[in-house]
This record gives sequence, C-alpha cells and structure tokens, in this order.
Amino acid sequence: MIKKNADILIKNGLIITMDADGRIIEGGLIAISGAKIAGVDSKETLSSWKAEEEIDAKGCIVMPGLVNTHTHLPMSLFRGLADDLPLMTWLNDYIFPAEGKYLSPETVKAGTCLSCAEMLLGGITTVCDGYFYEDHVAEAVLASGLRAVLAQGVIDYPAPGAPDPQKNIHVAMGYADKWKERSSLISPSIFCHSPYTCSTETLKKAKQAACERNLLFQIHAAETNFEWETIQKEHGKTPIQYLDSLELLDEHTLLVHAVHVDGNDISTIAKRKSAVSHNPESNMKLASGISPTSDLLAEGIRVGLGTDSSASNNDLDLFSEMGSAAKLHKIHQMDPTAMKAEDVVKMATIGGSNAIGLGSITGSLETGKQADIIIIDTRKPHLTPMYHPLSHLVYTVKSSDVRDVMVAGKLLVRRRHLLSLDMNAVMDDVMIVRNTIVGKDQK
Amino acid sequence: MIKKNADILIKNGLIITMDADGRIIEGGLIAISGAKIAGVDSKETLSSWKAEEEIDAKGCIVMPGLVNTHTHLPMSLFRGLADDLPLMTWLNDYIFPAEGKYLSPETVKAGTCLSCAEMLLGGITTVCDGYFYEDHVAEAVLASGLRAVLAQGVIDYPAPGAPDPQKNIHVAMGYADKWKERSSLISPSIFCHSPYTCSTETLKKAKQAACERNLLFQIHAAETNFEWETIQKEHGKTPIQYLDSLELLDEHTLLVHAVHVDGNDISTIAKRKSAVSHNPESNMKLASGISPTSDLLAEGIRVGLGTDSSASNNDLDLFSEMGSAAKLHKIHQMDPTAMKAEDVVKMATIGGSNAIGLGSITGSLETGKQADIIIIDTRKPHLTPMYHPLSHLVYTVKSSDVRDVMVAGKLLVRRRHLLSLDMNAVMDDVMIVRNTIVGKDQK
Repeated sequence: MIKKNADILIKNGLIITMDADGRIIEGGLIAISGAKIAGVDSKETLSSWKAEEEIDAKGCIVMPGLVNTHTHLPMSLFRGLADDLPLMTWLNDYIFPAEGKYLSPETVKAGTCLSCAEMLLGGITTVCDGYFYEDHVAEAVLASGLRAVLAQGVIDYPAPGAPDPQKNIHVAMGYADKWKERSSLISPSIFCHSPYTCSTETLKKAKQAACERNLLFQIHAAETNFEWETIQKEHGKTPIQYLDSLELLDEHTLLVHAVHVDGNDISTIAKRKSAVSHNPESNMKLASGISPTSDLLAEGIRVGLGTDSSASNNDLDLFSEMGSAAKLHKIHQMDPTAMKAEDVVKMATIGGSNAIGLGSITGSLETGKQADIIIIDTRKPHLTPMYHPLSHLVYTVKSSDVRDVMVAGKLLVRRRHLLSLDMNAVMDDVMIVRNTIVGKDQK
Repeated sequence: MIKKNADILIKNGLIITMDADGRIIEGGLIAISGAKIAGVDSKETLSSWKAEEEIDAKGCIVMPGLVNTHTHLPMSLFRGLADDLPLMTWLNDYIFPAEGKYLSPETVKAGTCLSCAEMLLGGITTVCDGYFYEDHVAEAVLASGLRAVLAQGVIDYPAPGAPDPQKNIHVAMGYADKWKERSSLISPSIFCHSPYTCSTETLKKAKQAACERNLLFQIHAAETNFEWETIQKEHGKTPIQYLDSLELLDEHTLLVHAVHVDGNDISTIAKRKSAVSHNPESNMKLASGISPTSDLLAEGIRVGLGTDSSASNNDLDLFSEMGSAAKLHKIHQMDPTAMKAEDVVKMATIGGSNAIGLGSITGSLETGKQADIIIIDTRKPHLTPMYHPLSHLVYTVKSSDVRDVMVAGKLLVRRRHLLSLDMNAVMDDVMIVRNTIVGKDQK
C-alpha cells in the first residue's frame, strides 16, 4: 500500500472536528502538511499515513484552537489594577490615566507578548484585537506565532500614539496598509471605539476606508445603559439603529457586546449579516448587562466568544468564558436547557472564526483548512470520568489542561512549554512596567 | 539570641492571613509546630525562628486552605453524565437511577478518593459533605488527609445503603457515633435531604438526634421554585418559615442554597443564627435561581461557598466558584461594586469555616489555629502582573496554580504532586465504574 505523506501526524486522540456534521472521532488521526490539515481520519485509516513527526494524543482531546473574538492585548499591563468599581470611575480614574501615562511602543509590545503567552498556553490560536500603537501589537503577535485580526483603534480624542484626533483614520489606514501583505497570519482591521466616542463623520469615514481595503470593521456597540441613553438622546435611535442609519452594518462589521439590543435591533443585525462578539464575563464583572445571545443565534447571526481585556475581566481564558456563557444564559433564562454545551463550543471555535471573517481557513478541523489545533490532556482527577466531551470542554476543562498548541502547522506550545516566546523575559518586561505604575523601582 | 523552634517554616511568601484585621504580610513567615500554626510573622522577625524543614514561597501567595461548605463527594462518578437538561429530568432519569444502580461501598469510596484528589490539588483543605454510605466516604476522606464535616444523608425513600426509610435516622446516628472520636480531622454530621423529601417527623427527629450529639445539621433549603411551591402548598409557609416552625433553625444548622428567601426569611435565619452555604455555579447551571447573598451577609449571617457535587457543577473548584460568585452578583444587582473580591475570599475561607462550625480551628492563618495552608505560584503569564492579591484570587488565580497544600501541618500536595493518594489508581478505579455505566468493559 502506498502511504500518504504528511509532515506531522497527531494520533490516538479523541478528535472534536467542529465541522458541519459535528463529527467526533475516537482514536482518530490528523495529518498535517505544511500549514494545512491534509486529512482527518478514523482509526481504521491510520496506517495509510506516514510522517517524520508523530504526536501521540492518547487520553487527550484534539480540537480546533479557540478563537478569541475580542480583546485589547496590551491592557494585560493593567490586569487587576482596579476592580469592583463603578464603570466610569474605573475608566476615568484608573484606566484612561494609566493608558495616558504608561503606554509607549515598548510597553504595548511587552503587554501584548504577555497576552499572547497567556492565550497560547490557554489554547487560543486566533485572536481579534483593537488598540493603539497597533503596529507594535502586530510585531509582538507576529513573534508569538498566533493568528490574528488586529485593528488600530479610532477615537475622537487624543489617543496613545495618535495625539491628533483629526488624523485618527489616517493613522489607522497607515497601519493597515503596512500590514496588508506582511504576514499570512495577520489581517489588519479598524476598530472605532464606540458610537459615543466617535462622531458620525468619523464612523462613516472609518467604515468607508475599511470597505475600500476589504477590512473587518469593529466597534463596541450597545454595551452599556449609559451608551444606549446617550445615543438615544443625541440621535433618537438605539445604538444599533443609529449605526445602521449610517450604513455601518454589513457582513464585514463585528459588533462587540450587543448587550442592549431589542428584537428590532436583532432583526437589523441579522438582515445586514453583521456579526457579534459576546463577552459574558466582562459584561458580568462590569455589570453592563446580559446579551440576548440565544436570540442572536436563533436569528442565524454569527456570534463568537471574546474575553475582553485583562484590565476588565481579568484574564484571557476562553475555557472559563465558555463555562460562564453556558451558566449565565441558563440562570438568566431560568432554563437549564438554554445555551447547551455544543452551542458554546461552537461560539468559541467555528462560530468565532466565522464572526471575524476567517471561517474558511480556521475554527474547525477539516481537510484543507489551516492546522490550528490544540491537544487537551484529560488524564487528570478533575477531568475524570468523561461521558460527553463537549460538555467536558464547557463545564470542566481548564485552560491549564491544554498540553500542545499548533498554529498553521507550527507547534507553539509543547507539553505546556511555550516555544515561540521567552516566557520569563516577557514576565520580567511587564513587571518593570508594573513597578513603575505602583511607584517601585524594584520588585 | 535564642531562636524559637518549629517543625516547618514557610518563608518569603505574600501571606494573606484572612484574620480579623485582614493582615497581608509581604515576604512574611509562618511557623508550624505539629498540626498548629506557631507564629505568623513579618520579614523582620524571620531570623528569630528555626526549623528542620523550610518551604520557600518566594513569588507565591500563602493563604488559608479553602473551605468547601457543600458537596456530595461520591457523585464525581457521575461528572457530566447528564447536562443541559431540565432539573427533574436530570434527577429522575439520570442521577437517581445511576445512584440506585451503581452505588456500593466500593464505588462510593472510589468516587470520594477522586473528589479528594481534585479538591486537594485545587487548594481545598476542608470539606463539608452529605451523602449515603457515609462511613465509606469517611474512610476515603481520612486516607486523603483532608479536614471534613461528613454527614450521612437522610431521606424518606429507600436510599443506597439505607433501604428502609424507617431506619434512616438510626443508620445516620450509627455512623455518627462510630466517627465521633475516630479522627481529629473528621466531624460527623447529619444531612436531611430537603423539606420536601423528609417528613415533618423525620426532620424533627433528625434535628433532635443532631442536638443530642452536638452535630452540624445540614439541609438543602429554598433551592428551587418547585420546592418553594411544594412547601407553600403543603404547609402554607415558605421553606425557611416551615423549617423554623419545626424549631430546626439554630446556630448548628447549615442551610444549603437559600436561593428562594425573602426579607422575612433572611431575618429569621439571622435571628436563629443559622448559617448558609452559597453554591452559585450549581444554582446557575441548574437554573435554580440567585441567592440574595449580599443581603444575607449584610444581616451578619455566616455564609460559606460551596461547589455542590460534580454531577451538577461539574467540578469541585472553589477558585472558579469565587469568580462566578463575584460576577454573578454584580450582574444580578447591575452594580460592579457589589460582592467585592474581599467578601468573596472571606466566604471561601474563614466565612466558610465559621458556617460549618470550624471557625475557631481553621479558615485563617493565626497563631494557635490548625496549619491548613496553601501556597499559590504567581509566576505565570496569566497571574502577571499582580496589583491586588485579593482581587487576583477571585478574578485570575486558577485551582491549577495551587503549588503546595498542607492540612494540620502535614504536606499533602508538594509542587502539584499529590502525596496522600495514588492518583493514577484513583482514576483507574473510577474509570472502571464509568465503563460499567456506559456499558463498556474496556476503556
């Protein structure tokens, strides 16, 4: 028998494909050639493959890497700086001043490296980000090996690295044009902060610039009551209807949060084929409200999960986010059958990649797709016994159970050792920023 | 200078004492003599102690072991057996039949060992349990080295190991008398299942038997709407008022859940000095409702955190439970300042030990108390940087970050290796039960 060649074979695992049929293959095989998946096969066809390198996944779950559809990577610098505070106190007295004082190309890079280390060790292989100094965010993400959609932030105030609001879109497009062809792993994007911090003119110009370049347009939308009331007062519309009236909603728009949306808003989002990033833990911790995620999904809207930044949440952990999503919607609807495990895993994988426009290349284990794969070691007391793997992923598996992580066929975490970044150097760099913030020169 | 002698010194850690003053000591020292804490000192007095054994906690948080105030240990056998189902379907079609078919002294012991392994590795040093075959639960817990309050369950139906409901209290007292003086680590208790599964007579007799022996009396109370309506219909009272009318509420009573309680119920619980076990993740996942925990605490009621069993929740992880508690009450009250990190850590430590009657011996790091101590390694990307340690414990630390665990001065986990149980044997034993349940003889 002539054997098919591959570079790497992942063998003996319980493969959760997250493909359209929801195939789960016990003791199966994944063959990887270059950056791509060359085959996803059952135990029976194992012997028809050969490769130089084999990874034994016995006793492990093998699944698509998780997709984090919303965060602000450098903000891990401010993880836990200020908790349990009213939103506006948190923003105005802590976060905005800290951003003004401590952000620079160097600190942004340090914070981003830290975030990438945390995400990779927690099984996230694709991230969608928006922040300032995004050129430096992108350099750090590139070094980490993660796949990413990275957006320069746009806001009508002086911002870190973009002191003149008149030039905010110009800065964003300069970044986007620079990164357009730079790496197959990084897609530039643009992120308008919100309907209440960007003028009508800025919103329209930013969307137009995004359309011209075929970029994902991101915006925090309908996050808080404050925002809803502000937009209602200024424009006589809900945030979603206001954005729609500016022709901002289409299939290349990602609405982040979508908490305060009514039935009419949901219909509009569905009609325009826009996508939503759902960030349950951030919405809980900041008491923003609860997004009607079940209704969004029922309307066929693409919904992905997001962690939001470590400054608000206070980590970048999509396993924890999955558990919170399932439990939050059950208690909110007073229905234990709401938001089933399968729906939640979907949001964290293929649903997320669909939402950020990468559905055709990542988010599921299928022949021809990019080899973005994680291996979870289930031989641990808290993961024993296992009856239903999807339920396990949502209710029991922790990010620390992720053993190996691969992006585009390249192993970035092996046996919980991060291969792409020097983890100690990354933590040391961030501690220097932290010590400056708390006014100490030494730890 | 004459040095003070101790058996073990834990040095250089960030010590979170959870004492009445909330002392946090940077680079401090804990001296342990025998089972007890001989001193909790600052860096300056370090040199006044000597000991044979020293544990370096540099870069670590040192804190009281966590107190899990509610679980059913053997039910880890059924972890994730049935999720996303209506409560009564889950109970009647899955859990009760599985209990009837697969519980025996041997399987109960296997499940308990698994639960103890998970809890110890996750920083839990004290557990409060209620189940059947509790004699065998106690044997397993004793082997694990955990501190525990362990109750034989009482229900007015044929139960595993107690087939004749007429003798349920007799069985429970036989167990309690056997374990009364058996080990300083194990306190027997009695657990009436609920106001709707135990008759008025059973409830009164069980409480009387508990009083005569000075045992903690536990009961699931005011958990679901179903229970509330049933008791209202049968007795014309809320569950709490019904239990109070039977004189069941006093300072030796632990009310588990207390979800459906009104202001009058809260006043009654406070007046009777009863305690509450709060299980937010179980209440969320089963869509039982949200306990008014802030109100209970405001009335001075002793409240501890509980994980509930792995069959409902699906793990025994108090770090995750802390995060869920903080976030759930913030979103429920739409107030990000509700349920602050400090309040949550208190519920998971000294609040919990107070609730189950062990407040004078465990739950805080103070001279003279039992040496129930955990050490958390904070040198990890997701725990970098740290600004506020209590906030870190609630929003960022994971159970897998626990490095060392000590109960009564004895090290049970060292560098994440479980010393008291053979972890692989424990998992193998449970897999045999699991394979029987799913109808396979082999994995």
